[in-house]
Amino acid sequence: MILLRRELGDVLRFHRQLQGRTLREVSATASVSLGYLSEVERGEKEASSELLSSICSALGLPLSQVLRNVSSRVAETEAVTAPVSLPVPSPAGPMVSASAA
Amino acid sequence: MILLRRELGDVLRFHRQLQGRTLREVSATASVSLGYLSEVERGEKEASSELLSSICSALGLPLSQVLRNVSSRVAETEAVTAPVSLPVPSPAGPMVSASAA
Repeated sequence: MILLRRELGDVLRFHRQLQGRTLREVSATASVSLGYLSEVERGEKEASSELLSSICSALGLPLSQVLRNVSSRVAETEAVTAPVSLPVPSPAGPMVSASAA
Repeated sequence: MILLRRELGDVLRFHRQLQGRTLREVSATASVSLGYLSEVERGEKEASSELLSSICSALGLPLSQVLRNVSSRVAETEAVTAPVSLPVPSPAGPMVSASAA
């Protein structure tokens, strides 16, 4: 199961690190506790919509961009984890014949 | 402040209604209570990542598609609500002169 909070956490951490900023700095700007931001980035805590907006503002990122990034990541994971239809040998097929031989 | 849960709720309701399905039917398929799904659709409750996945599955929608839809909606709202820079007359500008005349 693909979990939004994990993908979201990865995207938020990616952008923070890209900007060369610390958890302490961004959490202070966003008015959230350092521990909370850290848990959100690790995908361990669901960010409320209000706090997600604050974190995006602190990072200077539009929420739409963060969501687009998350959507792209999720789409990649979906492509990898999508169930693959393998041909199933019929009971009268070659595998059964081979086993019976 | 743009709130993810409101935009997400609108997108989930849009897709459910597009499919001509009831809250009762989708909530049963997703194994969530009808009241919870209704609150999520109205943007009154944050959906946990697990329940969001269940709701998307019940609607037969990839999570990535739902997030892409939400991102598009949020981008439209951001475009409308973005602060507009208006030209500010300088203290020595024409408005001051006009007032002093």
